[in-house]
Amino acid sequence: MQPTDPLVVFTPSGKRGHFPVGTPVLTAARQLGVDLDSVCGGRGICSKCQITPGHGEFAKHGVVVEEGALSAWNAVEERYDQKRGLKSGRRLGCQAQIRGDVVIDVPAESQVHKQVVRKAASARVIEMDPATRLCFVEVDEPDMHEPTGDFERLARALQTEWDIPAIRADLSLMAKLQPVLRKGKFQVTVALNKGHRDDVARVLEIWPGLHEGGLYGLAIDLGSTTVAAHLTDLVTGEVKASSGIMNPQIRFGEDLMSRVSYAMMNPGGDREMTAAVREAINLLASEIAVEAGIDPHLIVETVFVCNPVMHHLLLGIDPVELGQAPFALATSESLSLDAKELALDAINPRARVFILPCIAGHVGADAAAVALSEEPGKSEDLALIVDVGTNAEILLGDRSRVLACSSPTGPAFEGAQISSGQRAAPGAIEAIRIDPVTKEPRFRVIGCEKWSDEEGFREETMGTGITGICGSGIIEAVAEMRMAGLMDESGLIGSANQTGTPRCVAEGRTHAYLIHDATAEGGPRITVTQGDIRAIQLAKSALYAGARLLMDERGVDRVDRVVLAGAFGAHISPKHAMVLGMIPDVPLDKVTSAGNAAGTGARIALCNVSARAEIEKVVRQITKVETAIEPKFQEHFVAANAIPHKTDPFPELASVVDLPQVSFNTKGQAEDGSGRRRRRG
Amino acid sequence: MQPTDPLVVFTPSGKRGHFPVGTPVLTAARQLGVDLDSVCGGRGICSKCQITPGHGEFAKHGVVVEEGALSAWNAVEERYDQKRGLKSGRRLGCQAQIRGDVVIDVPAESQVHKQVVRKAASARVIEMDPATRLCFVEVDEPDMHEPTGDFERLARALQTEWDIPAIRADLSLMAKLQPVLRKGKFQVTVALNKGHRDDVARVLEIWPGLHEGGLYGLAIDLGSTTVAAHLTDLVTGEVKASSGIMNPQIRFGEDLMSRVSYAMMNPGGDREMTAAVREAINLLASEIAVEAGIDPHLIVETVFVCNPVMHHLLLGIDPVELGQAPFALATSESLSLDAKELALDAINPRARVFILPCIAGHVGADAAAVALSEEPGKSEDLALIVDVGTNAEILLGDRSRVLACSSPTGPAFEGAQISSGQRAAPGAIEAIRIDPVTKEPRFRVIGCEKWSDEEGFREETMGTGITGICGSGIIEAVAEMRMAGLMDESGLIGSANQTGTPRCVAEGRTHAYLIHDATAEGGPRITVTQGDIRAIQLAKSALYAGARLLMDERGVDRVDRVVLAGAFGAHISPKHAMVLGMIPDVPLDKVTSAGNAAGTGARIALCNVSARAEIEKVVRQITKVETAIEPKFQEHFVAANAIPHKTDPFPELASVVDLPQVSFNTKGQAEDGSGRRRRRG
Repeated sequence: MQPTDPLVVFTPSGKRGHFPVGTPVLTAARQLGVDLDSVCGGRGICSKCQITPGHGEFAKHGVVVEEGALSAWNAVEERYDQKRGLKSGRRLGCQAQIRGDVVIDVPAESQVHKQVVRKAASARVIEMDPATRLCFVEVDEPDMHEPTGDFERLARALQTEWDIPAIRADLSLMAKLQPVLRKGKFQVTVALNKGHRDDVARVLEIWPGLHEGGLYGLAIDLGSTTVAAHLTDLVTGEVKASSGIMNPQIRFGEDLMSRVSYAMMNPGGDREMTAAVREAINLLASEIAVEAGIDPHLIVETVFVCNPVMHHLLLGIDPVELGQAPFALATSESLSLDAKELALDAINPRARVFILPCIAGHVGADAAAVALSEEPGKSEDLALIVDVGTNAEILLGDRSRVLACSSPTGPAFEGAQISSGQRAAPGAIEAIRIDPVTKEPRFRVIGCEKWSDEEGFREETMGTGITGICGSGIIEAVAEMRMAGLMDESGLIGSANQTGTPRCVAEGRTHAYLIHDATAEGGPRITVTQGDIRAIQLAKSALYAGARLLMDERGVDRVDRVVLAGAFGAHISPKHAMVLGMIPDVPLDKVTSAGNAAGTGARIALCNVSARAEIEKVVRQITKVETAIEPKFQEHFVAANAIPHKTDPFPELASVVDLPQVSFNTKGQAEDGSGRRRRRG
Repeated sequence: MQPTDPLVVFTPSGKRGHFPVGTPVLTAARQLGVDLDSVCGGRGICSKCQITPGHGEFAKHGVVVEEGALSAWNAVEERYDQKRGLKSGRRLGCQAQIRGDVVIDVPAESQVHKQVVRKAASARVIEMDPATRLCFVEVDEPDMHEPTGDFERLARALQTEWDIPAIRADLSLMAKLQPVLRKGKFQVTVALNKGHRDDVARVLEIWPGLHEGGLYGLAIDLGSTTVAAHLTDLVTGEVKASSGIMNPQIRFGEDLMSRVSYAMMNPGGDREMTAAVREAINLLASEIAVEAGIDPHLIVETVFVCNPVMHHLLLGIDPVELGQAPFALATSESLSLDAKELALDAINPRARVFILPCIAGHVGADAAAVALSEEPGKSEDLALIVDVGTNAEILLGDRSRVLACSSPTGPAFEGAQISSGQRAAPGAIEAIRIDPVTKEPRFRVIGCEKWSDEEGFREETMGTGITGICGSGIIEAVAEMRMAGLMDESGLIGSANQTGTPRCVAEGRTHAYLIHDATAEGGPRITVTQGDIRAIQLAKSALYAGARLLMDERGVDRVDRVVLAGAFGAHISPKHAMVLGMIPDVPLDKVTSAGNAAGTGARIALCNVSARAEIEKVVRQITKVETAIEPKFQEHFVAANAIPHKTDPFPELASVVDLPQVSFNTKGQAEDGSGRRRRRG
């Protein structure tokens, strides 16, 4: 680089340098460390290195770009443009050569480390730096006088052309290497994977010539109840399809502890559950590939987040130790595996798997994924992050310290163990309001935008019907019943006489609140029973007690903000959650939803290999709190059972609602504690 | 170490140092880098660290050892002695503490890097430094307040107690980790494997408490015709059992090129052959474990040596490219694999496999193993090493340079394609002498020490009978026929009239020499036919031409010594080999047999992990010569067909024998060249 050579300035990076006349733009970019993509290594065939040269004066950069600052459009660009089209003003960085001072813009899609903004409102971006990438190479042909193997010559080409120091491959790749090399006339594209702890890159796949079919990964949130997958483009970071299925292990037990019990009581039971979940993942992977219209063999990576029991069952490890103190994990650190070790045969046979680390015996990789996504350790204010599922993962922290625990809420928040409960699906009541004067309900069902008292609701819900109440619906129903004075502080539903509404009907020795009755038309009769209230009380007490335990540990009695995570977190009304006492009280505007934060964490680890090292570090720094052995958890749990008339120490709740100070007589508290078998320890 | 502290001198190493009173001998040994074994880490239970303290004056070391130089025999030693017995004079190095100046001998069996002398006459020793070793550890019990996984605590224990920086394990090991740890009360023995290129050690197996069942490896010489295995104790280096079976691929073709053709002509044919050989290896492993009386799961490593076609078929790679120029290997470097990748399920499910590197497309890992065993690159004089099998591997070299080639001799030397040929087995004629005057033969068969004209021969061979001629027998027979004047320089067998013996019988248009006729008793009639002579001539010409080609390349017309290797090499008579012209002439005392040098190379790589790096380096330095494309190979091949009356340039042969200058008339040379279909290219 001589100062007399032309000056080249790249935008948006601002990187600049002098280069001899004739230097290709791609070469200049590489020498300056400018983020300009290339799969074919500068051969003018992949078109990843597209750039836009500027024209005229760039005062900011002190450059005047004159005509002819770049070499003329050449035959390679002409051919490419005819074949596939180049956007107006674009050039191929590997073909255009520097002739004079020039300002060159690298458009976002030509950057390797593109930044993909998450769909959610949060400003969190994922920088693309995937563990697996495509490299096009020209391999030397075999020579009898220098008899190295084809694989060794591929390695040499990758070293020379891509600066890859060393490669390895499975035997299945070795078996296809020779025909593919010959089919591509010794020009091939390889998918190279290098995990954050690897010093040798793996050849996961090889295609003759330039591969243009894309490359994909799966981010999988393996929950106790559902398995959710995001098919992600490993080049652009784009989510091509999202899909979910029920976890078939439900037939062995609805919650985690029932599954651990199943493994304890049935020899080989753990292996049954392992086989079931692996089969479901294969099915999910096949379905999502069909949905996105891609060959499932293009899926070369999978990232899993899950709780410790799911983690062990996925890996084929008997979770029995997780069912009893001291809740010892077989392994806690992150794992990088071959997909075939998990019998994931629906995707590329050489695909790699990354599993986030577990935080503790009951705080899993799903919580780690939430920490990766929500970054409590980078928060200026004290954040409480609650990932609500069958088990709740709770994180509390700020820059100074992060604490974590898990709390066994049971599946009530997901609509299970609720008399009219169902999963969130079309026809389920997801939101409900009860008029405090008339005590009449109005509600909304999934699949219809209208409320039940709006015109056209009936017609629009004809298809699905009104089939039950999902998790968010039951939380709202219980909170609304409390706000409407249908239920007292202890959670007891009043009678028709006590509440003044015929919707409070007797059911056995207790009462139920009737939301919807379609029995006349052969449809369901949807009520909230005393048993439902008890189930929700147990669940919310467990959740609240977990949060309080962390607050005790931290020495605070309030938090600055609350983040609701979990697929379900997105749908919970913060006001109702606070009325119920699910979460500590904060101003309503300090409650945000992070959507499926665990799933987002999985996507981050899929798209950015250095995030894998980051989460390992973060997990080591988290203080783990074990709810099962803390006597204070039990105290908080019992204390949190009521839904009290709110006073201090939560003045913020005034901004939400004042709950009525009612109290009902009853003879029917027999159900109380009926759900406690879900408690572990 | 203060100079005023007692002086400790270890023999045989001579290492010495001053240690404070009370230092255990094992600790002192470790600090000085003395090679003193220990599996239990100094807990007095493994007894590997036995030492013998000296008494009296050691003038050489300047030490007088007085009574009480070591602490008194303690309870741990007492218990160990009662339970298993300690040899007289022995102490446990971890228990005996230093009290005064002392000389301590480390017996051979207490050294980690024992030297195991090969059974063969050669002075080559194998230093024990296996990739897999046993470590006993005490693992911290799980603690809820510090919730690391059991595997991570095992890793920490191995780091603290054994200085192992990092470990990894298969999921199948993870799955058994927790029960084994608990069964052993958190004391376990692990088998740790660390290949020469690994920076992380693998946990291959785990046992509760101290494992005393041993640890084994298989050294396998995978030949075209036979598969031979040596079950080796990975602690002592001892060969516990050796066994061999036929390579079942023979049904797809007797020689390498027939198998390549089979793969070319039959879609999936390569996979059939891969499955067949893997099944055979599993069978062999099971049988050898039974023979040695060990649990096959104690076999944790396998080393393979084989030619390139066997190499590819073992790995599941179609060998089609090896059947045509430029004979490109899919991969040439050494491979470290999981045994399960080769479907070797008869041994430990986490066993590791090491496959020696191939030298070139036709010079395989078997030749590399011969180079590792025979070390031509360290030879002061110019050595020609010939590994005779269905394919001959030929190495020529000394300290300055080593050349290698392979020559397609075909299976005639192994008794195949010979009219009365058979494999070396009881009943086979393995040695023969023909009286030059009477032209009568006398012979020896495998399974009987006596010659056929000795008393008792008939009785001793009643059981097996006399069934055919094996490889070494046919070589001797042909050479003896030439020496007895029954055959001329061109290889033509004379008639009864021409030779003066009725044993030269007409067979079609040519003659055969009758060795043994048992047809009267319903037994076989064993002859050497003109066709047999031609087959041997072709084989020996190929072998000789390969050696000559290397000599041309090296620019010499004689070598200093010849080493015959291969299981078969051990049985060839050097004199007869030279009469035949199989090998260049050297003085008889310069021809040695290296036994199964390839198998020995495999054993070296099994017992010494650094030998794996060494052979990779050696292979890179070898000059590869491709016989198939060298026109001079064909010239040498044609020129070597005769069995001439020896004159210069081989005066040494005078020490062997003068061959008769005979010449026979014939009408029957039509068979000449009939075996040429074996030639490749």
